[in-house]
Amino acid sequence: MANATSIKDLPSLTGLHHRRNPLEENPFFHPSHGFYISPSDVVLSQVVYDLSDASQPHVAYHRAGPRREILYEPSSVKAAIVTCGGLCPGMNTVIRELVVGLWELYGVREIYGIPAGYRGFYSMEAVELNPKLVHNWHKRGGTVLATSRGGFDLCKIVDAIQQNGYNQVYIIGGDGTMRGAVKIFDEVSRRKLKVGITGIPKTVDNDVGIIDRSFGFQTAVEMAQEAISAAHVEAESAVNGIGLVKLMGRSTGHIALHATLSSRDVDCCLIPEMGFYLEGKGGLFEFLEQRLKDHGHAVLVVAEGAGQEIIPRNEAQKQERDESGNLVFLDVGVWLKSALKEWWEREHPKELFTVKYIDPTYMIRAVPANATDNSYCTLLAHSSIHGVMAGYTGFVSGPINGNYAYIPLEEVAQTKNEVNTSDPKWAWVRSVTNQPDFETNFKG
Amino acid sequence: MANATSIKDLPSLTGLHHRRNPLEENPFFHPSHGFYISPSDVVLSQVVYDLSDASQPHVAYHRAGPRREILYEPSSVKAAIVTCGGLCPGMNTVIRELVVGLWELYGVREIYGIPAGYRGFYSMEAVELNPKLVHNWHKRGGTVLATSRGGFDLCKIVDAIQQNGYNQVYIIGGDGTMRGAVKIFDEVSRRKLKVGITGIPKTVDNDVGIIDRSFGFQTAVEMAQEAISAAHVEAESAVNGIGLVKLMGRSTGHIALHATLSSRDVDCCLIPEMGFYLEGKGGLFEFLEQRLKDHGHAVLVVAEGAGQEIIPRNEAQKQERDESGNLVFLDVGVWLKSALKEWWEREHPKELFTVKYIDPTYMIRAVPANATDNSYCTLLAHSSIHGVMAGYTGFVSGPINGNYAYIPLEEVAQTKNEVNTSDPKWAWVRSVTNQPDFETNFKG
Amino acid sequence: MANATSIKDLPSLTGLHHRRNPLEENPFFHPSHGFYISPSDVVLSQVVYDLSDASQPHVAYHRAGPRREILYEPSSVKAAIVTCGGLCPGMNTVIRELVVGLWELYGVREIYGIPAGYRGFYSMEAVELNPKLVHNWHKRGGTVLATSRGGFDLCKIVDAIQQNGYNQVYIIGGDGTMRGAVKIFDEVSRRKLKVGITGIPKTVDNDVGIIDRSFGFQTAVEMAQEAISAAHVEAESAVNGIGLVKLMGRSTGHIALHATLSSRDVDCCLIPEMGFYLEGKGGLFEFLEQRLKDHGHAVLVVAEGAGQEIIPRNEAQKQERDESGNLVFLDVGVWLKSALKEWWEREHPKELFTVKYIDPTYMIRAVPANATDNSYCTLLAHSSIHGVMAGYTGFVSGPINGNYAYIPLEEVAQTKNEVNTSDPKWAWVRSVTNQPDFETNFKG
Amino acid sequence: MANATSIKDLPSLTGLHHRRNPLEENPFFHPSHGFYISPSDVVLSQVVYDLSDASQPHVAYHRAGPRREILYEPSSVKAAIVTCGGLCPGMNTVIRELVVGLWELYGVREIYGIPAGYRGFYSMEAVELNPKLVHNWHKRGGTVLATSRGGFDLCKIVDAIQQNGYNQVYIIGGDGTMRGAVKIFDEVSRRKLKVGITGIPKTVDNDVGIIDRSFGFQTAVEMAQEAISAAHVEAESAVNGIGLVKLMGRSTGHIALHATLSSRDVDCCLIPEMGFYLEGKGGLFEFLEQRLKDHGHAVLVVAEGAGQEIIPRNEAQKQERDESGNLVFLDVGVWLKSALKEWWEREHPKELFTVKYIDPTYMIRAVPANATDNSYCTLLAHSSIHGVMAGYTGFVSGPINGNYAYIPLEEVAQTKNEVNTSDPKWAWVRSVTNQPDFETNFKG
Repeated sequence: MANATSIKDLPSLTGLHHRRNPLEENPFFHPSHGFYISPSDVVLSQVVYDLSDASQPHVAYHRAGPRREILYEPSSVKAAIVTCGGLCPGMNTVIRELVVGLWELYGVREIYGIPAGYRGFYSMEAVELNPKLVHNWHKRGGTVLATSRGGFDLCKIVDAIQQNGYNQVYIIGGDGTMRGAVKIFDEVSRRKLKVGITGIPKTVDNDVGIIDRSFGFQTAVEMAQEAISAAHVEAESAVNGIGLVKLMGRSTGHIALHATLSSRDVDCCLIPEMGFYLEGKGGLFEFLEQRLKDHGHAVLVVAEGAGQEIIPRNEAQKQERDESGNLVFLDVGVWLKSALKEWWEREHPKELFTVKYIDPTYMIRAVPANATDNSYCTLLAHSSIHGVMAGYTGFVSGPINGNYAYIPLEEVAQTKNEVNTSDPKWAWVRSVTNQPDFETNFKG
Repeated sequence: MANATSIKDLPSLTGLHHRRNPLEENPFFHPSHGFYISPSDVVLSQVVYDLSDASQPHVAYHRAGPRREILYEPSSVKAAIVTCGGLCPGMNTVIRELVVGLWELYGVREIYGIPAGYRGFYSMEAVELNPKLVHNWHKRGGTVLATSRGGFDLCKIVDAIQQNGYNQVYIIGGDGTMRGAVKIFDEVSRRKLKVGITGIPKTVDNDVGIIDRSFGFQTAVEMAQEAISAAHVEAESAVNGIGLVKLMGRSTGHIALHATLSSRDVDCCLIPEMGFYLEGKGGLFEFLEQRLKDHGHAVLVVAEGAGQEIIPRNEAQKQERDESGNLVFLDVGVWLKSALKEWWEREHPKELFTVKYIDPTYMIRAVPANATDNSYCTLLAHSSIHGVMAGYTGFVSGPINGNYAYIPLEEVAQTKNEVNTSDPKWAWVRSVTNQPDFETNFKG
Repeated sequence: MANATSIKDLPSLTGLHHRRNPLEENPFFHPSHGFYISPSDVVLSQVVYDLSDASQPHVAYHRAGPRREILYEPSSVKAAIVTCGGLCPGMNTVIRELVVGLWELYGVREIYGIPAGYRGFYSMEAVELNPKLVHNWHKRGGTVLATSRGGFDLCKIVDAIQQNGYNQVYIIGGDGTMRGAVKIFDEVSRRKLKVGITGIPKTVDNDVGIIDRSFGFQTAVEMAQEAISAAHVEAESAVNGIGLVKLMGRSTGHIALHATLSSRDVDCCLIPEMGFYLEGKGGLFEFLEQRLKDHGHAVLVVAEGAGQEIIPRNEAQKQERDESGNLVFLDVGVWLKSALKEWWEREHPKELFTVKYIDPTYMIRAVPANATDNSYCTLLAHSSIHGVMAGYTGFVSGPINGNYAYIPLEEVAQTKNEVNTSDPKWAWVRSVTNQPDFETNFKG
Repeated sequence: MANATSIKDLPSLTGLHHRRNPLEENPFFHPSHGFYISPSDVVLSQVVYDLSDASQPHVAYHRAGPRREILYEPSSVKAAIVTCGGLCPGMNTVIRELVVGLWELYGVREIYGIPAGYRGFYSMEAVELNPKLVHNWHKRGGTVLATSRGGFDLCKIVDAIQQNGYNQVYIIGGDGTMRGAVKIFDEVSRRKLKVGITGIPKTVDNDVGIIDRSFGFQTAVEMAQEAISAAHVEAESAVNGIGLVKLMGRSTGHIALHATLSSRDVDCCLIPEMGFYLEGKGGLFEFLEQRLKDHGHAVLVVAEGAGQEIIPRNEAQKQERDESGNLVFLDVGVWLKSALKEWWEREHPKELFTVKYIDPTYMIRAVPANATDNSYCTLLAHSSIHGVMAGYTGFVSGPINGNYAYIPLEEVAQTKNEVNTSDPKWAWVRSVTNQPDFETNFKG
């Protein structure tokens, strides 16, 4: 294997004066220690190869970290931080570390929190942040800045950035937020503003592409496992007991999948990337019937996006569409719970049967980040700061194969991280969970 | 960059009949799903490159996972599992998954647990294991098989393997255990036994090389963070309070470092890879004095291997050597606690001062694995099984850049994962923790 | 104050031979240590008095503990243990301690677990229990014996007791189960069987009277507090965010009340014992509007039995009645969530508003008991054993003012522990939570 | 039984104007609800009686709660809160609730925190407290006010009270602190100052008398149980493994005893109130030898005050005395660990043996209070406020048989809550833990 390497280039602010990184003045950090990352330091995006296919080029991203030269005079920086969308463990750690890092490493003194998501830019007053204020935030769930969905008004937002003189904007949010960030970046570029824009992908579902995983995900899996454990106890303590847990994941089943792998108490895990059906040969009911017969109980985990195409829709639900024009989302957990009861009542009317249904969503996403995620959020925030200070813009920081790198914002906004059910990894994982392969059964 | 790739070859059993993987008969796993991993699937070991240096060759390891052909007739397999050395979160999960995986995926029915480490091979009776028995083991800390240090008697062990007819041996243990496993592998080869030997590195310190991290490490960091949090509370609630936490890590400071990064409450983290000194300009006392002046308290984390060269030794300690011929280990926590008290008594005899010292070692290593580690242990055990069934031997499974791979056992036994204090990563991390650089100070 | 004392007498088995407690032979327990409880040892039921009212007589219960004489020859004991109704933290601890206590203290060797509740007596096979089997059960949630509701068939149950030769029956369950136990006790007496019957009240709602609190209650409050904490984080992180938590408590609001007192994050706690209303002066909406104006968010806790009389019922719901002839129960949480949304949409159609609704029921009741409850369950089980061995029957053990006592089963079955909203305690507690007094408002 | 009742009288401020409780103006609290507690409401101190002994008089304490009349004009109140001694879970909750209760219930606006214990009165600046500032304190361990031992200078303290015009002083601390509070109360009375003094007993050891238990105790037991669980895992995973846990309790063994009862993993629990010995017939070694033979491992819990009289003292330790003139305290954990090793080395030099020693002290006392303790702290603080506002002084609030009452401060300062080893309760508990009775053996 001897493949060429292509580097993903990053936008950069132009027309600004290069200056020495103030860290050079800091007695702690000596160049001799190899402190700085150079533009030729890269992180490979792919590490698994089939050697028999020599044609694949390597793709690489610029490695994150402090640069020897930066483009901002720290005393001229006015930074804005905003959190958008739903909650995710670690948001407060990211905010805290952005504030502490800008303040202590680079000497930035004007840092503002935009309250309540995008709409906060133009409809609320920003909050001045400093290390003392944010000191304990990493121990609290949620986001102290508050958040909201929607409220994206491009013109008003960029006007607000311009009027308030923000020249660094840190945007923490999910895929919709990232697409908004691309538009802000484009508009800021169009207006020729010297404003560094960076996105910090926040998605408890782990559905953002390119990066290894999103922050808060491991904490979410930990909490999801507790819900599964409760469902397992309920199922085990009953006669023909089914424990049913609905987990987050509208388009991807990562939380469901990882919680299943972690807990080892799950009989079947249903995810949006994999079709399933209830009745007949190879269907869910047949499988559960067998499990109840064998073990007296069963645990079922379902990601919220699973089964959308097979849940019956009433007339209204057939018409109603969400903001993006998609059919409205139906509650797979509630539907499955009642479908299970109907099935048993029909098939075994005289036998005991119990379904205990748990929807732990808000108990999962509102907790503080665990140690692994706190560490991640810290390095993520510092990566972002170093990148912005160095003049990069329109980018996202994130771990690629365990190393922090800078990725073009647009690429992140367009890529989705789905569970690939035709990858060996999926088949292998499925062999661990030992659950049925509805798709094969169905096709077969 | 266009670099050549060299593959790390693996030993394999020879003279055995190749046969179809029984998973082929399993309706769940269809070849169409790309289930099998081929020998040409590899994982790159290095992902961070400096593009300006084009001479580095790529090194790759064989990817882990099920092979289309195996070398064992499942009904002829007699597997032995042994745990050696100290405790580490996840040991029971690994054992459980080895048993469940061998039993359910490959139909193996003879699986034995060797009690109490290496010496159990020749001095105790093995325990027969099956999925029902191990069902809940992954929720318990420690190792149900029990463990011990030492007891490595090569001849007796290989005799026992031979006499009991074990043809698969799964050895879970630390670096000393892995070096023993190499010897077993060599002796087994010398005797021309058809026995697959695999090592599963267990080191709560994360000091094993090549793999991303060892199992149980993230759980340990989580627990370590709790100890730090308690030390922080004690320090904050006192006048001139110092919270001092000693964490595991005889030769490497990974737990100390990661717990520091996670907790954000630590003022200074001392690790074996980095020298430090107490008195004088740039020393620890000067630094702490400033922190107490600024914040009224400080938190100090010290890995057990730090400072060994500066702790005063009495005559006996200057002579006494451990089994490996090294000077005996001194307790850096106890020493530091008393050194701090003496210093303050000397410098500020009339001012209040408190050191609260926590040694959470056994509360860290005895807990069950968290979700992240449980998932890791599960995939690790299954990787090992697939590799052994495919006929590989003298190898280790482990994640490399996030993908499970097979690594020659000997290589793992020889490589140490130390914190590289001349790597940009370390300097960067240090900028996050904002702690002094004793080495530079010392040299400068 | 000089009041007479009346003692609550207990039924006792008759016609049996008195014999020395085998504990007398145990070198550990010497009479000199005052080991035994005598029949004249009592526990007062009331400790709060108004001295100006001298007429109240004292009521006292027999103190629980080992008696010097017992009525069973240990080798002739055949004990049955059954768990009925829903889950509650600590059930497994009670079972474990019944088994261990009977076995180790009294030398009983025939102990059986009846699976799946009352119906298990006549439709399933009992499980033989011993200390080794139950060793770790106190660390597991749920009940290893399994449980179910209903299935009470008096004749079949007493037939089974008689046919199997059980002469001690330990019945763990809620108020319905206790009423069943009274019937079993009556029937057993009618048939003149020498069978000791004891009830162990299990009610996560803490709705059983006379005793201080029921086991598992404190664990439930701990978990409920976590759900409230999550709701609080969600509410705080939103604009006009309401966190709504539904907690267990069909007829009593103890969990809701105690979780509110513990968490200090709750703005209003609605319980079945207290009426409330939504619209108009002094109503819930007015109160919430003010809180949102003052703090930007609010947290609402509602016991599942609250508001049943004001939830609109459709025609079917007006007719449908449960087994006891009561109107079917409606889901106050779901109703309140939608009523809140409608209210806001009507009153403030243009302002952001979010309700995050958490129903943590199964995550609360399925956890293992915490330390306080484990200790309680242990002493409770041992109290029961000592009482039964001494020949008492038709009784319940439980703590009264912190001391374990024996209470006639019938009295427990008839008494309900409701929050007394005209007691000073309630008013005082309300002053702590600082929530509105709907009743006064309503009347006033 | 018809016994007389004697009431424990409380000191009260004199010469102050009686006024209506401002709660009367609060629309939430209507007299009709029986809100107020009257002076004739009492709580009995004893609930367990031997009916055959009719001579015992009842002792009763005044019930805690709001009074209809108070002695302070809220706008004239200047309150001081101080925390002394070591940490205990719940201290911050008590402080928070004192502030919130004074502010919201009575309209007090001048509330000061005295930093760092008694010495803070005269050597540091007080911190002004308000509900916004203390909002989240109940979720943090330790004491935000900071604390210290000693520093009791009666004259300076009362001078400071006088000079700063504090007319309510809330003193949170252990037995030494309470004895200091008595002196402050006496001196304040001598100077005829109109200052209400109340003590809030804080002792994680639960060694204060009269009240049911001290705050933080249940949280401490919960954490202690986790340490025991770790020790158990370590012991079980070794060959002849001993898990040894030292728990707090210099003069009383409550934490050790309750953690033992809760955990069910303990083989022997050693407390200060009970003598023990190591060698010979009936000694600890003999007992442990048997346990190791039976189970292969054992868990030992020792309260820090146990065994002081049998630990060998060197010459210095025979002379050295602490501030109170007692012999200095020796570390029973460290001693026991080495005594165990010596014993085994001597008796079984060729057999494996391991002692894992855990001292979780600071990890126990630094955690936030659990739900049960948080609730307790809340009611405790409100009880104190109501009592002080009503003009009581020189008193302590606390739960007696589950009901909050007021107790003369002097009585609390003089009473010690020890485990009574000649009480039936102890013998009974011992029968649960199933541990040896060294005293009987020794005497016998």
